[in-house]
Amino acid sequence: MDINFEDREFLSIAIRTAEENISDGGGPFGAVIVSDGRVIARAGNRVVTGHDPTAHAEVMAIRMASSALQTHDLSNCVIYTSCEPCPMCLGAIYWAGISRIVYASDRYMAAEAGFDDNRIYTELSLATGKRSIVMDQGLKHEGDSVLKKWEDFPDKVPY
Amino acid sequence: MDINFEDREFLSIAIRTAEENISDGGGPFGAVIVSDGRVIARAGNRVVTGHDPTAHAEVMAIRMASSALQTHDLSNCVIYTSCEPCPMCLGAIYWAGISRIVYASDRYMAAEAGFDDNRIYTELSLATGKRSIVMDQGLKHEGDSVLKKWEDFPDKVPY
Repeated sequence: MDINFEDREFLSIAIRTAEENISDGGGPFGAVIVSDGRVIARAGNRVVTGHDPTAHAEVMAIRMASSALQTHDLSNCVIYTSCEPCPMCLGAIYWAGISRIVYASDRYMAAEAGFDDNRIYTELSLATGKRSIVMDQGLKHEGDSVLKKWEDFPDKVPY
Repeated sequence: MDINFEDREFLSIAIRTAEENISDGGGPFGAVIVSDGRVIARAGNRVVTGHDPTAHAEVMAIRMASSALQTHDLSNCVIYTSCEPCPMCLGAIYWAGISRIVYASDRYMAAEAGFDDNRIYTELSLATGKRSIVMDQGLKHEGDSVLKKWEDFPDKVPY
């Protein structure tokens, strides 16, 4: 689908946030979350300054939006981001239930600028034993038992 | 690689955290981060109670550990988790530079318990136009320009 006039406005805010974030000590990424035609969160990447490897613009904006709305369910929201989300951020977007992503640059341009987004997409597509990170499994029975307890727990809130 | 005695101890703490977290209003997941043989972070899933879709156990533990060490670089750390990390958490683990993951249960058991980990892995493996979430691209030139500015920015801290 093509983006419309309103999309261009919100996407421009995300791009401007990314640009301003560079001189503010952050990475060159920005994101905006819109609900009912209104911006409810706007954030830049704060990984280095915030001492937080999870502080990508999209994750920061999701945290802000869900805090503002007091729910983990952002299914009526759209996220605008200056660059295609990395696997961590795309995963966060799915978990938030966000219905649409509008983005400007992409993982290949991010790679040229020195970021690992595309490499991490490739790693995730590999079987656990083929990845560059070591993944060892143990105590499977004990781990499975906790998930079975959850299934039987009467007061659980599914998400 | 098989897990050793020390691994079993740390993994047991992660599993116990997951179990206790259920009756504490959280999801059935727990994670522990170890640096130099010492637990520096321990967290359960707080998605529903914390109004934060990103508050999975692994992400919470990474935030705690990087805050404790005052760096986004956890490359000397190992993460122990009660269940195979979802794509969001696995992405976060890569961004943190963590070198090894030890896990107990897996995405297939999580699916039986009602969690979307495996579905999101499948979604991420698809091309952007084939996913269940709408992804629209626009203003690519403007988005690319910000990444080019970053490349030329003298004071940038790469990560």
